[in-house]
Amino acid sequence: MLIVMNRNATQEDLDRVIKTILVHGWEPKPIPGGERTAIGILRNQGAVDPAIFLGMSGVRDAIPVSKPYKLVSREMHPENTTVSVGDGSVVIGGEKLVIMAGPCAVESEARAMEIAHAVKEAGASIFRGGAFKPRTSPYSFQGLGIKGLEILARVREETGLLIVTEATDHEVLDLVEEYADIIQIGTRNMQNYRLLLRAGQAKKPVMLKRGMWATVDEFLMAAEYIMSEGNSQVILCERGIRTFTRHSRNTLDLNAVPYIRNESHLPIVVDPSHASGRRDQVIPLARASAAVGVDGLIVEVHTAPEQALSDGPQSLPPAEFEKLVNGLRAMNIMV
Amino acid sequence: MLIVMNRNATQEDLDRVIKTILVHGWEPKPIPGGERTAIGILRNQGAVDPAIFLGMSGVRDAIPVSKPYKLVSREMHPENTTVSVGDGSVVIGGEKLVIMAGPCAVESEARAMEIAHAVKEAGASIFRGGAFKPRTSPYSFQGLGIKGLEILARVREETGLLIVTEATDHEVLDLVEEYADIIQIGTRNMQNYRLLLRAGQAKKPVMLKRGMWATVDEFLMAAEYIMSEGNSQVILCERGIRTFTRHSRNTLDLNAVPYIRNESHLPIVVDPSHASGRRDQVIPLARASAAVGVDGLIVEVHTAPEQALSDGPQSLPPAEFEKLVNGLRAMNIMV
Amino acid sequence: MLIVMNRNATQEDLDRVIKTILVHGWEPKPIPGGERTAIGILRNQGAVDPAIFLGMSGVRDAIPVSKPYKLVSREMHPENTTVSVGDGSVVIGGEKLVIMAGPCAVESEARAMEIAHAVKEAGASIFRGGAFKPRTSPYSFQGLGIKGLEILARVREETGLLIVTEATDHEVLDLVEEYADIIQIGTRNMQNYRLLLRAGQAKKPVMLKRGMWATVDEFLMAAEYIMSEGNSQVILCERGIRTFTRHSRNTLDLNAVPYIRNESHLPIVVDPSHASGRRDQVIPLARASAAVGVDGLIVEVHTAPEQALSDGPQSLPPAEFEKLVNGLRAMNIMV
Amino acid sequence: MLIVMNRNATQEDLDRVIKTILVHGWEPKPIPGGERTAIGILRNQGAVDPAIFLGMSGVRDAIPVSKPYKLVSREMHPENTTVSVGDGSVVIGGEKLVIMAGPCAVESEARAMEIAHAVKEAGASIFRGGAFKPRTSPYSFQGLGIKGLEILARVREETGLLIVTEATDHEVLDLVEEYADIIQIGTRNMQNYRLLLRAGQAKKPVMLKRGMWATVDEFLMAAEYIMSEGNSQVILCERGIRTFTRHSRNTLDLNAVPYIRNESHLPIVVDPSHASGRRDQVIPLARASAAVGVDGLIVEVHTAPEQALSDGPQSLPPAEFEKLVNGLRAMNIMV
Repeated sequence: MLIVMNRNATQEDLDRVIKTILVHGWEPKPIPGGERTAIGILRNQGAVDPAIFLGMSGVRDAIPVSKPYKLVSREMHPENTTVSVGDGSVVIGGEKLVIMAGPCAVESEARAMEIAHAVKEAGASIFRGGAFKPRTSPYSFQGLGIKGLEILARVREETGLLIVTEATDHEVLDLVEEYADIIQIGTRNMQNYRLLLRAGQAKKPVMLKRGMWATVDEFLMAAEYIMSEGNSQVILCERGIRTFTRHSRNTLDLNAVPYIRNESHLPIVVDPSHASGRRDQVIPLARASAAVGVDGLIVEVHTAPEQALSDGPQSLPPAEFEKLVNGLRAMNIMV
Repeated sequence: MLIVMNRNATQEDLDRVIKTILVHGWEPKPIPGGERTAIGILRNQGAVDPAIFLGMSGVRDAIPVSKPYKLVSREMHPENTTVSVGDGSVVIGGEKLVIMAGPCAVESEARAMEIAHAVKEAGASIFRGGAFKPRTSPYSFQGLGIKGLEILARVREETGLLIVTEATDHEVLDLVEEYADIIQIGTRNMQNYRLLLRAGQAKKPVMLKRGMWATVDEFLMAAEYIMSEGNSQVILCERGIRTFTRHSRNTLDLNAVPYIRNESHLPIVVDPSHASGRRDQVIPLARASAAVGVDGLIVEVHTAPEQALSDGPQSLPPAEFEKLVNGLRAMNIMV
Repeated sequence: MLIVMNRNATQEDLDRVIKTILVHGWEPKPIPGGERTAIGILRNQGAVDPAIFLGMSGVRDAIPVSKPYKLVSREMHPENTTVSVGDGSVVIGGEKLVIMAGPCAVESEARAMEIAHAVKEAGASIFRGGAFKPRTSPYSFQGLGIKGLEILARVREETGLLIVTEATDHEVLDLVEEYADIIQIGTRNMQNYRLLLRAGQAKKPVMLKRGMWATVDEFLMAAEYIMSEGNSQVILCERGIRTFTRHSRNTLDLNAVPYIRNESHLPIVVDPSHASGRRDQVIPLARASAAVGVDGLIVEVHTAPEQALSDGPQSLPPAEFEKLVNGLRAMNIMV
Repeated sequence: MLIVMNRNATQEDLDRVIKTILVHGWEPKPIPGGERTAIGILRNQGAVDPAIFLGMSGVRDAIPVSKPYKLVSREMHPENTTVSVGDGSVVIGGEKLVIMAGPCAVESEARAMEIAHAVKEAGASIFRGGAFKPRTSPYSFQGLGIKGLEILARVREETGLLIVTEATDHEVLDLVEEYADIIQIGTRNMQNYRLLLRAGQAKKPVMLKRGMWATVDEFLMAAEYIMSEGNSQVILCERGIRTFTRHSRNTLDLNAVPYIRNESHLPIVVDPSHASGRRDQVIPLARASAAVGVDGLIVEVHTAPEQALSDGPQSLPPAEFEKLVNGLRAMNIMV
């Protein structure tokens, strides 16, 4: 934190700021300049809230300098983290782009199996599908629950695909940890701290989706919560942010990818289905993400999108999904 | 939902849309126009996702027509709802502007009592203070937990102020319901559906804070979740939204207040402290909210803001809080 | 500007940053800390672009410290600026809230006169009305042009109301300067630098509307452009910003008002009509703005809103406008 | 436009809406539904403002149905438009990805020539460079003006590269039209209607940059302005939008590309330099844009970025630019 004083700040103003810094147990470091004085803050653990100083007499600005996260930071851990999934047959953060695909929600075993075979054939190595669904409306389909998890387990057994599925609260996580190969935390739960702490105690990798409102710093702090409990197998997932635009449900933030690469050692995947909410934008955004160099894609696929019980409209039919994967290969992306 | 066809859509395109509507169990109503045909959808329960139709051949646009909420809607319930708190001595949604005030977090009984006496003196009728705190950083103070709730109960006993405090998950809600007069659901939990459903079963009023990313429709849908479980004592709280600006932590959205008044019968309060995150903006925003005609204010007050363990920087000292309340009276607001 | 180095930055990294600072003619000031080094930049004129340093090896962050504006800054000019309009009978930035009202566009002399008498009666002292209109569609009514300016002059003559109207480019400004008492620069032109420079040479006060996308710093920089050419009679106008919300055309940013008050000595007015785009939000937002303590309001009023050639829907009928003004008086606002 | 009535709207409410529609010269088409009535509006020229109806008694919502643009619309002109530049040696919207590259501003002939040779060598076919610069600060370098245009002409003569440069107002456009092969309209001028109309009379192609605040519909309406004056050689340029994020100057909106492809026949290019404002994000975003299938890229390149007089920080050195182009070829993009 750097406290910037007004040009006409008095000595008392300065003293008051210095005293406040000392009260918090930090070390003040005055930096006299040509026009005004600034005061650096040292020896703080974690972030200092600028607002502590913003209202004080003689203070012009309070500017955060250091980042609040540690464990997720590349500075602390320069090499890339790779996440080994299931039996280790799939590695996220390695040389290959990992493709996770499947329906938004698990609806029935027959349907799930049909989709799983189709996406495996096309090149996916992980099957996605929600058993517990967070739904905006209390009147919508809420998922099959534990029965859905059992279907996912049978899909894995029959197809060899590994499984990623969402845990919607800390109790559901107990179940999901038992069945899934990757535990997903959804965008609405990015700051559900009880859930994050529980995920930090899990023995399985966690895929954390960015909150649609979250800055990258907040996103990394949420990952820090998980890592702070001991689980370092965290996969970050960019899935679009909320902006003023009207032509898509969200706006995919690909600027975030090189920024995160620089700040953090954790692998990053993109969800082009939720980043658009529209079937006709999924393939373009998947291609864009692959070109940027993400470690994986998670894509909604359904054999009968128009009958899907949730999010059908953003699901690709298998033929489109196959086209997507072949298109990536044509770009010389290793899938 | 209104499906708008392209000018050059074929009869097959039309038939396919109509069939899709029928498959979902809805009723299609074609509306031929001068240039193009549109198809209305009738007999749907709840909202129809436009994306179902957006990718289809010949479809130009799919436009939601009806609102997804029912129980919260003024159309279904034309008169204002008033929420009677505690023993009924405080009513939210009545003629008086109800003021809730207190520290961000309960830190100690002595401090809580000191602040409570100060805010009561100045005109508050409800005491706020967090016992369970959702914190962005795992390294920050997380609240006193149940000990905090006990302190709040003693504050009520000694001062007569009623109590509002946050439930951070469905298990915490069991405790909060026992101790508090109003159960608060925080901005990050606006779409924590498990928590919303539990709140809907509570026997106490619920104050639901708007997600900083949420449209008003999504906000009202979250309230619908609570009401759908049988609890109709819901208070809406506008607390600022996330925008591109840099001069405040959030942007207070006062446009939402007349809009919500029109759409819903539920009472609305404003939190000017979180809507700004800066002490020097709290009074102006509190005045603005009162002038718009909200039913209450929830304000952070601390007797030693610079020593507060959380959110000190946006807390008013008691003298400033008193100034705020007196300023409202000078505007002829009934406090 | 403060350049924050990585913990593991090398001496060469440091030297390269220092050299780059020197190349620009600035002075580097290294600040060794516990964990890492930071380098302050002194003696820069105007803002330093952080991106100069962001790509460099060993650099973790580059943080702007000083504000880019000078003339508009309260630091340079501690007392409030008051703007005297026309013959001096109206002062903006004084004790009274100044009310500007009138139609979006001047449509005919009869209509303009009718509206002018109505708003004067209710308490307005300045008449607003566009002669040159910036319209989103090339197929919309573009204003009466110079004929509109002549009508405005006759309105002033007959009613004694002073006149504010928009200059849409630097040539139009020549005309507007001749006829109007205040030259308005619209939201879409906030960064039309040719127009700003021309406004800086004008002998009349300028009301600068905030760009709907602009941070307050950018807004103040636009005012700086005008002042840098010698015109210090600048009135800032907050008119709503673009956000993700859907319930209003824009979101009124009242957080900006106390922030600007602190940063700048220039008077501030609010346009509740464009900040909402909906008639039913105008009165609430006008009340909120007055409660925050702005220096004026600019409100669209029309005697037959449903027949207005532009922006009719956000115009108040005179009876509503009168209610607005009386409501302000009931709040003890001096109008 | 579809007017949706309340369930309890009266016959008078309905009659009033119908009368208002008729007053505007449009045709009302009532659509009785199960729960409520809706009224379609036919025979309107251009868009209808929903706000006309939003305040009326018994009206629940007013929903735009048709798009306001015509000439730019794919519906009116199903085949892709290709823009032939200069002598026709470069075609934008054809099979090849066209690369425009060069410095932000023309600083000197020697520098411009040096950069031009470097970008040509690497694969660019059009040289970019500002002679007239819109600058946020009045104290920044404003460009060489006409001398800059003359340098650009000599660059073309010596290297064979075609020229794109910005016209900052309608008078500057007279000059730019004489010298340049493509006239650029900058993001801040996307709604400078005088400039758009002048561009519509130009005999050269126009590259229109999206306003950083503009919806795609507004962007297309700005292109409509140009086309409505007779110039159909319009190239759309996505250059990033303003969002709440902090890790880049803007957020590149690639969701817009497939949407625009569907809505309009005009070619689209992307500016990854301004979409990020940071050198380390330019190559990833350029790759992403190419993968989405845009018709061109416009990239800032400088031989000594740290000495550039404007926007140096987002400029690539030639070696990086070459890497970018080679990377596209490795993705099997035809450059």
